[in-house]
Amino acid sequence: MFKLPEYTVPDFSKAIFEAAPVVNTVPAPGDGLLPDNFYATTIYPEYFKIGSSWELINAPRMDCAVVVRDGKPYAVEARRVGKDEAVVVGREEDLSNGVFIHYDAFKENNNGRVQSFAFRTGKSRESSYSRDYDQLYDILRHDREHGSIVWVLGPAVAFDFDARRSMSGLIEHGYVDALFAGNALATHDLEAGLFHTGLGQDIYTKELYYNGHYHHLETINRVRCAGSIETFVTQNNLSDSIVASCVRKNVPLVLAGSIRDDGPLPGVIGNVYEAQDAMRRHIMKATTVIALATQLHTIATGNMTPSWQICEGKLRPVYFYTIDISEFAVGKLHDRGSLSVNSIVTNVQDFLINAARSLEVI
Amino acid sequence: MFKLPEYTVPDFSKAIFEAAPVVNTVPAPGDGLLPDNFYATTIYPEYFKIGSSWELINAPRMDCAVVVRDGKPYAVEARRVGKDEAVVVGREEDLSNGVFIHYDAFKENNNGRVQSFAFRTGKSRESSYSRDYDQLYDILRHDREHGSIVWVLGPAVAFDFDARRSMSGLIEHGYVDALFAGNALATHDLEAGLFHTGLGQDIYTKELYYNGHYHHLETINRVRCAGSIETFVTQNNLSDSIVASCVRKNVPLVLAGSIRDDGPLPGVIGNVYEAQDAMRRHIMKATTVIALATQLHTIATGNMTPSWQICEGKLRPVYFYTIDISEFAVGKLHDRGSLSVNSIVTNVQDFLINAARSLEVI
Amino acid sequence: MFKLPEYTVPDFSKAIFEAAPVVNTVPAPGDGLLPDNFYATTIYPEYFKIGSSWELINAPRMDCAVVVRDGKPYAVEARRVGKDEAVVVGREEDLSNGVFIHYDAFKENNNGRVQSFAFRTGKSRESSYSRDYDQLYDILRHDREHGSIVWVLGPAVAFDFDARRSMSGLIEHGYVDALFAGNALATHDLEAGLFHTGLGQDIYTKELYYNGHYHHLETINRVRCAGSIETFVTQNNLSDSIVASCVRKNVPLVLAGSIRDDGPLPGVIGNVYEAQDAMRRHIMKATTVIALATQLHTIATGNMTPSWQICEGKLRPVYFYTIDISEFAVGKLHDRGSLSVNSIVTNVQDFLINAARSLEVI
Amino acid sequence: MFKLPEYTVPDFSKAIFEAAPVVNTVPAPGDGLLPDNFYATTIYPEYFKIGSSWELINAPRMDCAVVVRDGKPYAVEARRVGKDEAVVVGREEDLSNGVFIHYDAFKENNNGRVQSFAFRTGKSRESSYSRDYDQLYDILRHDREHGSIVWVLGPAVAFDFDARRSMSGLIEHGYVDALFAGNALATHDLEAGLFHTGLGQDIYTKELYYNGHYHHLETINRVRCAGSIETFVTQNNLSDSIVASCVRKNVPLVLAGSIRDDGPLPGVIGNVYEAQDAMRRHIMKATTVIALATQLHTIATGNMTPSWQICEGKLRPVYFYTIDISEFAVGKLHDRGSLSVNSIVTNVQDFLINAARSLEVI
Repeated sequence: MFKLPEYTVPDFSKAIFEAAPVVNTVPAPGDGLLPDNFYATTIYPEYFKIGSSWELINAPRMDCAVVVRDGKPYAVEARRVGKDEAVVVGREEDLSNGVFIHYDAFKENNNGRVQSFAFRTGKSRESSYSRDYDQLYDILRHDREHGSIVWVLGPAVAFDFDARRSMSGLIEHGYVDALFAGNALATHDLEAGLFHTGLGQDIYTKELYYNGHYHHLETINRVRCAGSIETFVTQNNLSDSIVASCVRKNVPLVLAGSIRDDGPLPGVIGNVYEAQDAMRRHIMKATTVIALATQLHTIATGNMTPSWQICEGKLRPVYFYTIDISEFAVGKLHDRGSLSVNSIVTNVQDFLINAARSLEVI
Repeated sequence: MFKLPEYTVPDFSKAIFEAAPVVNTVPAPGDGLLPDNFYATTIYPEYFKIGSSWELINAPRMDCAVVVRDGKPYAVEARRVGKDEAVVVGREEDLSNGVFIHYDAFKENNNGRVQSFAFRTGKSRESSYSRDYDQLYDILRHDREHGSIVWVLGPAVAFDFDARRSMSGLIEHGYVDALFAGNALATHDLEAGLFHTGLGQDIYTKELYYNGHYHHLETINRVRCAGSIETFVTQNNLSDSIVASCVRKNVPLVLAGSIRDDGPLPGVIGNVYEAQDAMRRHIMKATTVIALATQLHTIATGNMTPSWQICEGKLRPVYFYTIDISEFAVGKLHDRGSLSVNSIVTNVQDFLINAARSLEVI
Repeated sequence: MFKLPEYTVPDFSKAIFEAAPVVNTVPAPGDGLLPDNFYATTIYPEYFKIGSSWELINAPRMDCAVVVRDGKPYAVEARRVGKDEAVVVGREEDLSNGVFIHYDAFKENNNGRVQSFAFRTGKSRESSYSRDYDQLYDILRHDREHGSIVWVLGPAVAFDFDARRSMSGLIEHGYVDALFAGNALATHDLEAGLFHTGLGQDIYTKELYYNGHYHHLETINRVRCAGSIETFVTQNNLSDSIVASCVRKNVPLVLAGSIRDDGPLPGVIGNVYEAQDAMRRHIMKATTVIALATQLHTIATGNMTPSWQICEGKLRPVYFYTIDISEFAVGKLHDRGSLSVNSIVTNVQDFLINAARSLEVI
Repeated sequence: MFKLPEYTVPDFSKAIFEAAPVVNTVPAPGDGLLPDNFYATTIYPEYFKIGSSWELINAPRMDCAVVVRDGKPYAVEARRVGKDEAVVVGREEDLSNGVFIHYDAFKENNNGRVQSFAFRTGKSRESSYSRDYDQLYDILRHDREHGSIVWVLGPAVAFDFDARRSMSGLIEHGYVDALFAGNALATHDLEAGLFHTGLGQDIYTKELYYNGHYHHLETINRVRCAGSIETFVTQNNLSDSIVASCVRKNVPLVLAGSIRDDGPLPGVIGNVYEAQDAMRRHIMKATTVIALATQLHTIATGNMTPSWQICEGKLRPVYFYTIDISEFAVGKLHDRGSLSVNSIVTNVQDFLINAARSLEVI
């Protein structure tokens, strides 16, 4: 039986905490501007001494400024800091700036299953993944009931018949609470729904269709004519579609725009900073993130995902999996710290088919 | 002596062209919407029979609708087509839709140097690149005087001392007419200018600095406080900087936003479709494009780059080079057709150092 | 129901064949030496006109000389040609040298399932593999009863708990008729049997053992002390072991030496040309070859595997699958011709687990 | 000015060394067999207490047994240990087995240039390599006069015009004291000398030749007819040839056989363990090793290369560089320890051209 590791609450009655000064703040010199020596957040639980109490950061994510609002610390992207807001300064890690970073949040309970998450000596094609799969399935079964699972998908997921079917099955069975992707994933998934192709090539037989290079442009135009993805999905009865499954199951679909986009489809967020905001709204609730075959969206999501979350009233780890066929790609998130990131080097088609079979959704 | 291949002008007096019908157009059903059976452009020179004459496409790029304005055909992204504009329809490739795609534009002159550009059996780490380098240097020397050279850079270019110095040298010596990149390239280049680091690691010694993870956030905040990249560069005397060289030499720098961005720096275009428009304005003049180590920006640029250009009154090829260490990445642009795309599988650091030495800019 | 494609027997009564001359032969100038203009074999069915009849090549493999012995043509590696043997000369492909290469051996029956094997436009991580898997399972079920299945394994297969278990299951259930590997695969598989580690790391938990770097040296020494792999396996009751399953099921295990080897284990063939001979004895019967995650052994096997085989009295295709996580690696065998090579770009762990589940051996 | 780091001789007069017991030895139970609990060597300087003195290992390499002969310790591969030879046993690292591993051999002098060799946090395409190149050139200039430089080459080096020319230049200018490769490198280099092709493709223009697939078989047969590579080279006046330069400059060429080989060429060592012995004879003198684009030969060489060498009477580091386009490949040697391994992720063509230019040999 899978059990979440227990969080070790810091004992702030200790002398070292009592002796520490309160945080220093300096007013932001302008909208979106930070004062000298601003403090920047990490992925760990961080406490800020404000008045006589140590306050846990709100809306955590790394690389943010910390703004004190009504006596509470908030992680805020620099671009969203208002002129004259109180910004925490000081970069020491010895409490002398009134900041405590709780690196060992889950360490004392590090026995049994959780230990492997601390194992971080680099993953390659030759690493053993049996246990990573087993643990992931445990976590997914747990978080389907007691958490929020965010998936981040690259377009390749829509190019294979069984992979697309598996992802659709995971959505239909409740293993997906939000889905992040780009215009391409949605376009090719809908193309597959309309034409059984991805970029004009059959997603099962690999046959190339005559004028198949029109398929994605056609798809985009038809959805644009329908006015929205939801309307289009309702009008067309698409089977095994990732997008259609999201619409049917009311799973939020955040489609972030990129300069590669054709179209775009209606609903794609063209301003990338608004897209970040939309993604972050879901990440603030996420307990597990699974990112497949997209460097851009994976890193974007990784940037805004802390290593912990408060869920059902308890502080718990956030599990972050990256699955990519390239060691280089998975290595990009490697250094985020010990608790939360895990990676599997493989083709995401096989990953999805394995997962769908093991969770019995296909 | 490098010579551009001659363009073969189609002989429209031939019976087959005389017999062809004029193009059919249908009004666009709404802003950004296309009629059924819309025609989509290619990367080749395309002619449209309008009235009794065959008109060469204007503002060429692939995957666009063709709108007839004042009797002239224009390639227009679907999202920019206005309601009721006259959109060309019909997808045949046998002139029966009034469209002639000039696939063989440069073929008859296919002797000597040009031939290798037609060699398209897939590039790998084991392909021979000596001649590709030699040709590229010829083209760059030629197009510095008689063309417009656009570079597309991934952030890795700023992480190495000699690579950054080489790129800066190429800009200073006139080999760069426009530069496309993202927020990260500019940030890390300016970080290197301020701190001699990339993401906190020394770009020469690889030493990790204390609190080095603040360097890029510091850099971004300082530039934001300065108000613009130009002001910041003027205030700080940065040596060997890619960005500073662009500012000094008045080379346009198009920085497209992405969801991975911290900051962003002032001047980064947050809306990706506006960023596409800004990029395309430069691509419309480009005669050579060199894309280094960025899948996102390379494909985005490739999508909007035709295989030909009118320059100094003559229709000539556009040379498109992709340089990346991954066969998979360079293969992504592989299928654009015979004349214009070439790729080199290597580390872009070595590519730049080789190029800078061969062109004697460092 | 899976059906092998029918072989099209050439109609040698046609005038063009009647008119062709007989083959020319020249005596080999020395042991292991070939005369000028020697003919070299391909992977296709090849016929040689000797006397008045067209004789199908015996012991086919590519890049061999053709020696006529007792009126029959044999493919012989140059190093095995004896002085004064009759070696076929002439390199034309127009019958004028008395040679007919039957490129279209299976082409006329190219409908249904077989077609996809002809699809050869390069495989990548983004290719759709659903159908490749389905076909492979069909072939394996067929050839278990009506063929001979050779597996070629890299050492990574032994590093993961489930992958090793899956491979063992395939052997136990009759899906393996011969197994080619190197000293490393056998060593690490036996290490896993003794210590539950691969190179000292637990194959399930990834835990690193104290003095774990001794495990493979210990394993080798113990097997050497036992005198043979067979004796060692009998003495030790190894579960889920690839090597032990081979011993138990009497599956021939050809272990070819390489300069990377520690040890070696008893039974490893230190002379690589003797190892080639040992491998080729099994390939001469193979109807399907599956090569996993080893460039060296895959290419070695590919070099000696023809595209066809005579089995149960019928000429049929040989199916050759390469599975590797690197596009570059699978591309190496890519150009062998249309009928027989297929590749899947993925982690072999997932490949094996998928296969073992689909064939219901675990 | 490049200076080798000083070796810190252990102070064996310290009580801890005085108190340590002498090594225990047990007779080998048979030829090529080791006793229980045998000690295995590392890449570091190791001392064995024999009688009252601490003796430095002779013929060092890792993963060997230690045999005491005439009171001196020798590193001996298990397969070469004779029955009843005295084999050191005990695996503790606390001197209690009479063994001292000198991990910190060069640490105290770790200032200036040498430090970066200790920098081992994984190399990728995005690492900064400027300093690695600069240091390598310093080392090569130094070791050309005061050391022995061994190069290990994969076949890709012979496929490009400028790379082959560069490697040839390095040999001609004294930067190569021994060259390790396989049958393929030699074959394709000689093919390029005869036909200007690699596997039938022009090494400059990439043109495919008619019947070009015969070129390597032709080459092999002609060399076999000549009787030896040396005779063949003398008979044919090959320019820019790696092999011919070795012959002309009397640089030993160790060609190790593999199961992939066609031919083989005369001089290729078919027995891999004899090939290991031949390689090790040169490695015992090597002060710098540079391994390019071959996983097999690089790992084989790495296995037998210690981190130190006695040269000109002084104990000094051995510098080991691996250059490969794949992070996975260079990572394979990554864990050998801090002092000696360095890697560059790039295409070896560019590496060679950079090196040849910087060392002014082309």
